[in-house]
Amino acid sequence: MRYELYYWPEIQGRGEYVRLALEEADASYVDVARRGKGEDRMIELMTKGRMATPPFAPPFLKAGKLWIAQTANILLYLGAREGLAPKAEAGRLWAHELQLTIADFVVQIHDTHHPLGGALYYEDQKPEAKRHAANFRKTRAPKFLGYFDKVIGKSGGPFLLGRRLTYPDLSLFQVVDGLRYAFPKMMKRLERSVPRVAEVHERVAKRPRIAAYLASERRIPFNEMGIFRHYPELDG
Amino acid sequence: MRYELYYWPEIQGRGEYVRLALEEADASYVDVARRGKGEDRMIELMTKGRMATPPFAPPFLKAGKLWIAQTANILLYLGAREGLAPKAEAGRLWAHELQLTIADFVVQIHDTHHPLGGALYYEDQKPEAKRHAANFRKTRAPKFLGYFDKVIGKSGGPFLLGRRLTYPDLSLFQVVDGLRYAFPKMMKRLERSVPRVAEVHERVAKRPRIAAYLASERRIPFNEMGIFRHYPELDG
Repeated sequence: MRYELYYWPEIQGRGEYVRLALEEADASYVDVARRGKGEDRMIELMTKGRMATPPFAPPFLKAGKLWIAQTANILLYLGAREGLAPKAEAGRLWAHELQLTIADFVVQIHDTHHPLGGALYYEDQKPEAKRHAANFRKTRAPKFLGYFDKVIGKSGGPFLLGRRLTYPDLSLFQVVDGLRYAFPKMMKRLERSVPRVAEVHERVAKRPRIAAYLASERRIPFNEMGIFRHYPELDG
Repeated sequence: MRYELYYWPEIQGRGEYVRLALEEADASYVDVARRGKGEDRMIELMTKGRMATPPFAPPFLKAGKLWIAQTANILLYLGAREGLAPKAEAGRLWAHELQLTIADFVVQIHDTHHPLGGALYYEDQKPEAKRHAANFRKTRAPKFLGYFDKVIGKSGGPFLLGRRLTYPDLSLFQVVDGLRYAFPKMMKRLERSVPRVAEVHERVAKRPRIAAYLASERRIPFNEMGIFRHYPELDG
């Protein structure tokens, strides 16, 4: 089966968590909106589509007859189907729980530059962003990263669930990668206290398929339109 | 099996979505933190607990040997186990997708009074809250409610997935109930254009077990500590 991924073509955004899973699984997929008139097609599907299960927003994935949206939900599906999650119920739920906690973290990362919402430009909410980012650097980021470090410690490592990589490891890689881009000063200081999280990043980056993907043109570079934005004034 | 629910005892918060599912399913459960020294026990579990799968935050549910956290993940589990979700994969994923979209909406509702984050009191972020809430009333709330109304229309109704109630219907009820409390003026105006959403609220409220729950002391009243807060200055 050839999957069709629908996501905004110019940013990593939330689509990236899905791309990393598809790449690690060596799945056949088309990144629809990055081809020809693909973005028009995506928007047409969202506004005039006849799916019985219309997505609220990208990313969404076509898998055979299924249309699946919501990043964590797509990963729940791919995890089971592509061998990126445990088969037993307890492990499946635990992997998903970690993914949802990563999703909460991603919202807070996004809010550092858009605390008043996406309807205003960053330039129109700079003072608010500065206050929000200060709290993020001081309390939220250490709390989330420290939590994942503790989880890896409990499992025995080197991954979140133990010896085998699962889809939340790929997402944790992405978060660390993005935070290093957006908050280099903060991460230099913070990473010392979360060595297991840094190790997941390193191990994921070295997986042959992920390494090939990161070196390819399929990987969109970080930029100031996505979730992880480097605004030095927010890095303290 | 008797479930143990762990959640902050003084607010509906995110625990309420779980409570509504347990009540509709007529499941046996203890709301641990609302009893005797239950809140201390919850905090001790979070700080010194030995679970292999430690929760990041409440709510979390003990189900036999399983500890499950993240609201949507708990509902994924209860939906399958307690007959509140379709059995087939496509329906299960669709119900979960809707739940995750409701969760996104809940974050934005919370942000109307706390755009700069939970580290500051509402009183310390009132001008920012006013700007955020104006955008919420004008664009975000109509977009989310309109989406759910469209979904019910597509399914044939009266519920999100069609003729049978599933767990996201209970959560949609809660969101409408909370928005009526927090933004009565906005909802009076908005609900006219989302009649199917209003009908889900009405039908859920009349389910015998839900009606009994809402009339009981188990239902914590809305207040200004939870997600849905009535600050008239934010209602336009």
